[in-house]
Amino acid sequence: MKFIIDCMGGDNSPGANVAGGLLALKQYPDLYLIFSGDEAAVKAEIEKNGGADESRYEILHAPEVITGEDKPTDAIRLKRESSMMKGIKLLRESEDIDGIISVGATGSLVAAATLRIGRIEGVFRPAFCPILPTMNGGIVGICDSGANVDCQPLQLVQFAVMASAYMEHTFGIAEPRVALLNIGTESEKGDDLRKEVYQRLSALPGINFVGNMESRDLLSGKYDLVVCDGFSGNVLIKTTEGTALQLMKKIKKDIYSKTSYKIGALFMKKMFTDMKEFMNYQRYGGSVLLGTEKIIVKGHGSSDSTAVAKCIEQARSMKGSDLNRIIAEKIASIPEEEPKEN
Amino acid sequence: MKFIIDCMGGDNSPGANVAGGLLALKQYPDLYLIFSGDEAAVKAEIEKNGGADESRYEILHAPEVITGEDKPTDAIRLKRESSMMKGIKLLRESEDIDGIISVGATGSLVAAATLRIGRIEGVFRPAFCPILPTMNGGIVGICDSGANVDCQPLQLVQFAVMASAYMEHTFGIAEPRVALLNIGTESEKGDDLRKEVYQRLSALPGINFVGNMESRDLLSGKYDLVVCDGFSGNVLIKTTEGTALQLMKKIKKDIYSKTSYKIGALFMKKMFTDMKEFMNYQRYGGSVLLGTEKIIVKGHGSSDSTAVAKCIEQARSMKGSDLNRIIAEKIASIPEEEPKEN
Repeated sequence: MKFIIDCMGGDNSPGANVAGGLLALKQYPDLYLIFSGDEAAVKAEIEKNGGADESRYEILHAPEVITGEDKPTDAIRLKRESSMMKGIKLLRESEDIDGIISVGATGSLVAAATLRIGRIEGVFRPAFCPILPTMNGGIVGICDSGANVDCQPLQLVQFAVMASAYMEHTFGIAEPRVALLNIGTESEKGDDLRKEVYQRLSALPGINFVGNMESRDLLSGKYDLVVCDGFSGNVLIKTTEGTALQLMKKIKKDIYSKTSYKIGALFMKKMFTDMKEFMNYQRYGGSVLLGTEKIIVKGHGSSDSTAVAKCIEQARSMKGSDLNRIIAEKIASIPEEEPKEN
Repeated sequence: MKFIIDCMGGDNSPGANVAGGLLALKQYPDLYLIFSGDEAAVKAEIEKNGGADESRYEILHAPEVITGEDKPTDAIRLKRESSMMKGIKLLRESEDIDGIISVGATGSLVAAATLRIGRIEGVFRPAFCPILPTMNGGIVGICDSGANVDCQPLQLVQFAVMASAYMEHTFGIAEPRVALLNIGTESEKGDDLRKEVYQRLSALPGINFVGNMESRDLLSGKYDLVVCDGFSGNVLIKTTEGTALQLMKKIKKDIYSKTSYKIGALFMKKMFTDMKEFMNYQRYGGSVLLGTEKIIVKGHGSSDSTAVAKCIEQARSMKGSDLNRIIAEKIASIPEEEPKEN
């Protein structure tokens, strides 16, 4: 398998990106990587990590960097020498390369992937599907989490189909329980979009649709996948992330406010460490973009080398499970109905 | 001041509702209450709590109860003898009654309030504004949190104006920092709705608009009010509530898993109790419906008597600060622009 790593962008680039790639190379003997980034900087990072078998990687020299400040449309047009755009261009032109992993600017990656890499036949719009840990030790996928802010019913139906296949074939969850994010559990809840999607998912064969989910139940372990428009999906995942972070910060601050709390915390040190690791959703890899012809994995901007390696592992699993072929088949089996104009 | 308490509906009714009313009567000598509910049951609860001065309350006999299972439109039409509908009817007909407090079914309350109680002149749609505690000890309002699932720009602008006045005049926050819930902080982020509202709020005098907010920053203390459509606002508040609850549940479970953790927790008992109280957002009262001619306060279904009393206190403060007159003035000062048809 052959993947490109965008070595620039992200808070710890190029160090974490290159080191993550080298970790994955060690772990998977069938892997070949293309490091896209400033050649000298990438070389220095490879050496710093003790080098690697030169027959298993190459460097694509790309001196420019795309940041979150760049407008996606400008980034595509003006930053052609960037690690992301050169990577996407090579991915598009090379039949033997399977995908790209990036921890860089999300907007630019979505725009470049959508415009330069083709969509799987029949897919209306690609969508992100990040993964969160649930409170009973399982995981839950959220699709879409921000690639599509305005959605029509067919899109949400396709998100359900694509992401259900992803949860099943990449994570081995049999008949994933698919829920629709809504403001109540009853079938008639929500706006017109939700009502129509509810009806269509209820009638759709080959998917285990279990009804509406209120956002407070996201981490309950009762669902394997939550389907939503990109706007509310973005609110859903960032609120979860933010609340958990703020709460853990508060606990830490509270502990330091009193000696008896500090003593108590000594007994619970391992519990808090385990908890932090439990909430570290980067151990599940990144947020994949479903529906593109090649594999696109977007890691968190703050990814360290382990998280980058995890993203590569994820890309490998997607390729290994032949996910895109399965998605193409499932998309083709959705009863036809033309997307309505907004 | 004269308020109606819907004594049925809610998980602890009529006990908590009646007891909450009696608490408020003790606390505020200027208060007069109308207990709407089954007369015998309400009387029994009053007696159980040691009685009250009969010149300061009356009972409106209403034998029926509206539950979450009732469709709002059916509830209005068919359950006229319910505590909620009889209360709303009396509120509508009595000039000297200032508002109603209910912990019953939200959908039915919104429908009845919107259809039976008039809107403040110029208000397009009433909206909910619940309050959450922030991590630095302050509070943040969220408007709308679910009364309007489909919104157009004017509505969000009005939510900002109404809820900003609420945060300022009922909670004493000078020049509340108003943010727009969005998927990124840059001005051009989001869908057409968000882009237009951003422009209009930026240009609006008399409001301290500080830009877009990502949901992960809700509890940061950087904002006093977050404006959003009712769908994403509902996701925002229920995700925050759900994540905090699930996390505290996990901590509790983890503590019980090991003796050393149990010992540590003994040292931290007060910290966890304080934390629980800190997260108990019911101590800020309920979610008020802004934009109706009379005061409507919706308490959480799980409210105990203290929470019910807090809701009455909140209704009192709204009346005392002459909030509806201020809202009417501010709404009238918004530059005219006809709501677009969807």
